[in-house]
Amino acid sequence: MIKKFDFEKAAKDNPFLNAKRSDQANELAELQRACIERNLPVLIIIDGWESAGKGYTIKQLVRELDARHFKVDVFEAEDADAPLHPYSWRFWTRIPARGDFAIFDRSFYYRVMNDPDIQGKKLKTALKHFERVEKMLTDDGMLILKFFLNVTEKTQRERIQELLKDENRDVLISKNDQEQNAHYKKYRDHFDEILEMTNLPFSPWWVIAAEDKKAASRQILGITIQEIRKQIQSHTDASEQSEPAFSRSYGKAPEILQKLRTDLVLSDEEYDQAVGGLQDEADELLFALYARRIPSIMVFEGMDAAGKGGAIQRLTQGMDPRLYEINPTAAPSDPEKDHHYLWRFYTNFPTRGRMAVFDRSWYGRVMVERVEGFAKPEEWERAYDEINAMEEELTDFGALVLKFFLYIDSQEQLERFRERETDKPYKLTEEDWRNREKWDDYVEAMNEMIDRTSPPSAPWVLVEGNDKRFARVKVLESFIRAAKARLK
Amino acid sequence: MIKKFDFEKAAKDNPFLNAKRSDQANELAELQRACIERNLPVLIIIDGWESAGKGYTIKQLVRELDARHFKVDVFEAEDADAPLHPYSWRFWTRIPARGDFAIFDRSFYYRVMNDPDIQGKKLKTALKHFERVEKMLTDDGMLILKFFLNVTEKTQRERIQELLKDENRDVLISKNDQEQNAHYKKYRDHFDEILEMTNLPFSPWWVIAAEDKKAASRQILGITIQEIRKQIQSHTDASEQSEPAFSRSYGKAPEILQKLRTDLVLSDEEYDQAVGGLQDEADELLFALYARRIPSIMVFEGMDAAGKGGAIQRLTQGMDPRLYEINPTAAPSDPEKDHHYLWRFYTNFPTRGRMAVFDRSWYGRVMVERVEGFAKPEEWERAYDEINAMEEELTDFGALVLKFFLYIDSQEQLERFRERETDKPYKLTEEDWRNREKWDDYVEAMNEMIDRTSPPSAPWVLVEGNDKRFARVKVLESFIRAAKARLK
Repeated sequence: MIKKFDFEKAAKDNPFLNAKRSDQANELAELQRACIERNLPVLIIIDGWESAGKGYTIKQLVRELDARHFKVDVFEAEDADAPLHPYSWRFWTRIPARGDFAIFDRSFYYRVMNDPDIQGKKLKTALKHFERVEKMLTDDGMLILKFFLNVTEKTQRERIQELLKDENRDVLISKNDQEQNAHYKKYRDHFDEILEMTNLPFSPWWVIAAEDKKAASRQILGITIQEIRKQIQSHTDASEQSEPAFSRSYGKAPEILQKLRTDLVLSDEEYDQAVGGLQDEADELLFALYARRIPSIMVFEGMDAAGKGGAIQRLTQGMDPRLYEINPTAAPSDPEKDHHYLWRFYTNFPTRGRMAVFDRSWYGRVMVERVEGFAKPEEWERAYDEINAMEEELTDFGALVLKFFLYIDSQEQLERFRERETDKPYKLTEEDWRNREKWDDYVEAMNEMIDRTSPPSAPWVLVEGNDKRFARVKVLESFIRAAKARLK
Repeated sequence: MIKKFDFEKAAKDNPFLNAKRSDQANELAELQRACIERNLPVLIIIDGWESAGKGYTIKQLVRELDARHFKVDVFEAEDADAPLHPYSWRFWTRIPARGDFAIFDRSFYYRVMNDPDIQGKKLKTALKHFERVEKMLTDDGMLILKFFLNVTEKTQRERIQELLKDENRDVLISKNDQEQNAHYKKYRDHFDEILEMTNLPFSPWWVIAAEDKKAASRQILGITIQEIRKQIQSHTDASEQSEPAFSRSYGKAPEILQKLRTDLVLSDEEYDQAVGGLQDEADELLFALYARRIPSIMVFEGMDAAGKGGAIQRLTQGMDPRLYEINPTAAPSDPEKDHHYLWRFYTNFPTRGRMAVFDRSWYGRVMVERVEGFAKPEEWERAYDEINAMEEELTDFGALVLKFFLYIDSQEQLERFRERETDKPYKLTEEDWRNREKWDDYVEAMNEMIDRTSPPSAPWVLVEGNDKRFARVKVLESFIRAAKARLK
């Protein structure tokens, strides 16, 4: 049995739980303004049985809200056999910006809920990813409210029949509705299991008895009001307290970069002899990945002036440009700042078969944002886990993930900067010189990053970059080796 | 016969037309930097016969380009029977930002080119929209280069066979390829007609003999270099000249808003009696539009404090929030400023059956941007035509387009501002007071706007707004009337 929430008990603490709906709606609009002022994002998920009254509930939620700061998204059936993107992609692209409300009709849970045959390990893997996403977002300050509208077999049947009779609303009935009702017991057990497994401390489920639509929507409004108030209160408490001392168990990072060889070189002849053939081979392999619908994600990080752009150019030069996209990562734009730091990357992941190259990436969180203090210590500290979790979703989805770290030593960087000053001044900024002064801090952060984000499924390829030709060939060869292994 | 370009003649003026490809690629990279510096956007369309070597050509174009400032987009087959968006939507969403290159593999022309049965009036209508879009973009400073790769029936057949034999590249062959080759003559005549009709002075076609892939790509690189140079030159010339005097033939606008009645009121009782029933009816009608897959676009403009937000809320309050989206229009963000002013609206048009409400809109171009001088006179002057053209595409697509103009007189605005000062200070800004000082300029611009953008298919509904209740009911009734007429 799906557990029920004790509303009578809760009503004592929450005067808005059973208040008039118009009062509730006005109260929620007040709270919306408070969230806008405080930059608090709120995600409300309305899930539950088909035909349980989700549309009605959402209508009541938004009736007094400021339209500039909420949006409603509907997650309908997708092509489940061959999704083009990793599963959580379409949710990431729609998460609310700071200060905004987003209301989801169905959610991440759609696919697993509507397929009772997803069980055991497969179910656990899917739910593990949702749990991680919800954790990342709530850690980032988002309030996530998950409602499940519960109706009996009989009520569901009646509602389906009612909608089918309506010449305009019959489009709302899909074969899922009929299917659920025909196998009600089986679905109930399945929902039960999912709700239990994802009833998380930071994003619990609220199961709502939705036999009476009006009562159900009053309860949802009441709970929403209560939880937003709590969120605002804890936000206020936190900002009144002095910054808590942050302590880490991670000690000094191992000396990884310092131990790289700086003497590896290729002559012009060796390079010229190798590069054309490697590029042709890389081209072939990208087509083979495309034919097998395997997406690939190539991350490039490294010291300033280490040759990332040149290495990317040589990697892709022989490839069909219709199969890859290069994503440069600059300082975040305003809309990007208004979202979780991973949001802007999720929107740029490749569809099946294609390759996305990232010239700098989400690793900025644990390098520049750490060293320059743009992220707080607790923020970049938890980023290692978040990044590992995100990359695991990508590799679970079947993606080939390779991360290249291009290293040059301090002396080589100085020479390249000086060369740029005269030859290509547009490629050298004041910031490059400032970063250089913090060389040791960057190396320490980079070493920790490599140490903590190197699972076998998404390894760092360390590239000795003092000689550009050597580095470019190593990148090409590494891609070729990894693609071949993946295609076996 | 498809007309051929006289390359021998052209080569005399363009040393890069037959230069070595590596020199060409480096020259193009130089020019790309010049475009970035000057904020010049470049759109390169590679169209032509299937299997004519588009991928190869694009690879040569991008080989030395800075990846941060170009992207390649592929326009593959879409669900032609039931497209979710107006036709040019997917191209608008991918146009290059100022300073960037975009390379399209196929383009707008895909659908009409691949269906030789599109003829006569239907063909003319489709091509008319492309012409207008190309005009808007080139007027806005974009360079559009359209290449058509031409191959003989025999070459096409050989290339298809070659690709089919390649175990990875066989995915590149679609039934379009086979279909074109089987009916080569029919397609050639069809292409001929399309190329003739869209060989526009501001965006001509360059027909390239693509029998020899290498020669073809040299020609494309050479022409691209030549045309970008010309564009940079004319841009430089224009900025060196003093601003040309701009003269308009349009005189004083008719007094439209001044003649609206300001005494129309509804009592509380009349309003309360009417509004619930109208909201239910609007809800029913939106579902009926959804069932018929008719998208609707509701634009709200008006004086500051005229009650746009309240009217939108009352219009949508009874509707299922899953069927509509409200798009507030604030000052453009940086990425929005980097594109044509219509770009950000194109990305928010509704999919079939849904409703998009715009709280302020593209009409800002001829109101605030005109009055405040954010747009140059020649820019806002041509905007009337551009807006009419865009709305005609929407209504041709089957959309219901309604534009509400909420008018209050100056005295009423003053009272509302004063009320807000005490009650809702967050709804009143310094800018509101500044705009108020330019009341007459705004009214003149608004009158001209209404006069020049009122085709029968996308009319302005003038709403007497001094009494909020009257205005809200008039908006609801107007929507109901228009939706009913559309559904007949």
